[in-house]
Amino acid sequence: MVIGPNTERIPRRRRPQRVALVTDFGAGPYIGQMRLLLAAARPSLPVIDLLANLTPFRPDLAAFVLPGLVRGMPPGTLYLCVVDPGVGTDRGILAVQLGDDWLLAPDNGVLATLIRHAGDATRVWRVDWRPPAASATFHGRDIFTPIAEQICAGRLLAATPVAPAALVGAEWPPSLAAVCYVDHFGNLISGMRAADVPVDAVLRVAGRHVRRARTFSDLAVGEAFWYENAFGLLEIAVNQGRADARLGLVAGDPLAFEP
Amino acid sequence: MVIGPNTERIPRRRRPQRVALVTDFGAGPYIGQMRLLLAAARPSLPVIDLLANLTPFRPDLAAFVLPGLVRGMPPGTLYLCVVDPGVGTDRGILAVQLGDDWLLAPDNGVLATLIRHAGDATRVWRVDWRPPAASATFHGRDIFTPIAEQICAGRLLAATPVAPAALVGAEWPPSLAAVCYVDHFGNLISGMRAADVPVDAVLRVAGRHVRRARTFSDLAVGEAFWYENAFGLLEIAVNQGRADARLGLVAGDPLAFEP
Amino acid sequence: MVIGPNTERIPRRRRPQRVALVTDFGAGPYIGQMRLLLAAARPSLPVIDLLANLTPFRPDLAAFVLPGLVRGMPPGTLYLCVVDPGVGTDRGILAVQLGDDWLLAPDNGVLATLIRHAGDATRVWRVDWRPPAASATFHGRDIFTPIAEQICAGRLLAATPVAPAALVGAEWPPSLAAVCYVDHFGNLISGMRAADVPVDAVLRVAGRHVRRARTFSDLAVGEAFWYENAFGLLEIAVNQGRADARLGLVAGDPLAFEP
Repeated sequence: MVIGPNTERIPRRRRPQRVALVTDFGAGPYIGQMRLLLAAARPSLPVIDLLANLTPFRPDLAAFVLPGLVRGMPPGTLYLCVVDPGVGTDRGILAVQLGDDWLLAPDNGVLATLIRHAGDATRVWRVDWRPPAASATFHGRDIFTPIAEQICAGRLLAATPVAPAALVGAEWPPSLAAVCYVDHFGNLISGMRAADVPVDAVLRVAGRHVRRARTFSDLAVGEAFWYENAFGLLEIAVNQGRADARLGLVAGDPLAFEP
Repeated sequence: MVIGPNTERIPRRRRPQRVALVTDFGAGPYIGQMRLLLAAARPSLPVIDLLANLTPFRPDLAAFVLPGLVRGMPPGTLYLCVVDPGVGTDRGILAVQLGDDWLLAPDNGVLATLIRHAGDATRVWRVDWRPPAASATFHGRDIFTPIAEQICAGRLLAATPVAPAALVGAEWPPSLAAVCYVDHFGNLISGMRAADVPVDAVLRVAGRHVRRARTFSDLAVGEAFWYENAFGLLEIAVNQGRADARLGLVAGDPLAFEP
Repeated sequence: MVIGPNTERIPRRRRPQRVALVTDFGAGPYIGQMRLLLAAARPSLPVIDLLANLTPFRPDLAAFVLPGLVRGMPPGTLYLCVVDPGVGTDRGILAVQLGDDWLLAPDNGVLATLIRHAGDATRVWRVDWRPPAASATFHGRDIFTPIAEQICAGRLLAATPVAPAALVGAEWPPSLAAVCYVDHFGNLISGMRAADVPVDAVLRVAGRHVRRARTFSDLAVGEAFWYENAFGLLEIAVNQGRADARLGLVAGDPLAFEP
């Protein structure tokens, strides 16, 4: 392989030691084909399905979940993040070095909040390498996966440094008062850092007042409340019930506080 | 790490060779974060999602599925079992040595049936080790995962032997005539060992008589029957149909036999 | 282990380097138990969930998805394919060497299209090895998984060569104008190779005309179209919507073109 002028060489101690997949691909063959390619290239590389059911087609919501998702996770991980309503367009591809981690994603805003929070600790490249052939609709397999392999091998090909301010989503707010992800239990995960919300703040949801509690066991069964979840985000739950069904909310719905 | 007076040292041949996750976490980021932590600590340790969609919040049902789930599985496995409506309470944590296997779970009854069946082959400890910081709601990641790592490394920290009779669920029956788990095909898995049920027993479900058959292919398409499933449990199925929808049953519903 | 007269020895360079699971088992304990057995037998063997939610009980549909699923995947893979409405019958078991890959599946047609496309590059055996004991309903765990282990170890036990023409599905057509798989996004994957369909062909679906587009981004949000998907198959989608809900189609439904 020719190492051209735009190739960034990655020293061994900076290379990812594992790959975490973050997608909206859900159950089905998409994650599996990516894993099969990675397993063939690097049989002993741990590949983890970190999150496969992001809200489909919504990088604008995923952006506010990602900082919570990677918080406290072990350094040395390459997060391969693919959620993109614009697959098939000429969307740029970003590789980001953030502390000891790597991020690889389309330039559609999905990394915007992470990059904003990280500040100067971040290096961002636009990656113009493309394979000889790629499908029109599965860039996760055909473009992102081989780029991930290259990073693991210590090379970032056809990469141009870009300023964070030039990225899609650079002007987005640091947090989002909306439902960004609905989990398996029907809990509503917002795009707000709980530490930024006063402990006496009251949400107004579906005509109800939703107050803060420390944990599920503080509440009566069936009661709605908000709390700081394990990702540091404000989350709305119903003790031993489904908040999505009880409150009639879906991903993308805005959240409002009582004045 | 200080090896204190309550530290149990685990000889190398007794240490788990793989971790099996048994949870009600479903699809989403919870399993993924636990796997990421385990992959960073022990990159070559096999970690298997054995079962991720136990009936939510129901250790009282999971307890009767677990013995079937581990039956015939290879020795040397650490089963990390987290299903707990009481996360955030002061629930104890149990580590159990059962033959060549390990079990790690909250003291909420989820291990009760397994321990009862195993009898004297079991050693049980209450583990009082806690990390310097933990979220209020994701003990699977913050407390159970590091304890699992410690066991794999040969140490059980802050562990006190406890008598099985002192555990939550010690007084539960050895089997449960109820739907304990509904599988992907809509089959209804009970908490009864099929070997304990007479072959001519007839269940009365939703006004129908449900008789035993040996296997799916013995029945007409659409017919409901019970049989000994691959876990040794009584299971109700409808040949090439969904028993849950056809019979209107959900997890937790009781099952009754014809007199 | 006795190497009997019907044992096929597999030279080291022909042995699978990874196992890909292709099933209709969905979420639940079935995949997990198979993985646990494989992890105990071969801890460093990569095992990938390639596809776990094939249309239940429909090898006749899966047959037309498989060629797309394996296309372009790395050589040296053993595809363990279990979708079978006839588990518990005396269905034969097939092991197939197809180029540098292996396939292991029931003789129910699920491999028929792959074998037909591969032509003379294929060797097919009927495997009569059976374990001392097996459940009536989970042959994926009790019979197929140990045979997969044997192949990885370089042995095909009790194997008799069979002619492709003698297999179930040998007379099936090379493609199927029907919905064979519905993906996570509600996209409808057909059993037709897109390369065989004229680019100006128009499908008639639910009273609508569905025309070809190159990719999602060529279309208005909500518009239905067909295109060549990443597996080379004709797929029907609705841009940023669910084609299954919009068009009222489910797996197994036939597809028709305008005359």
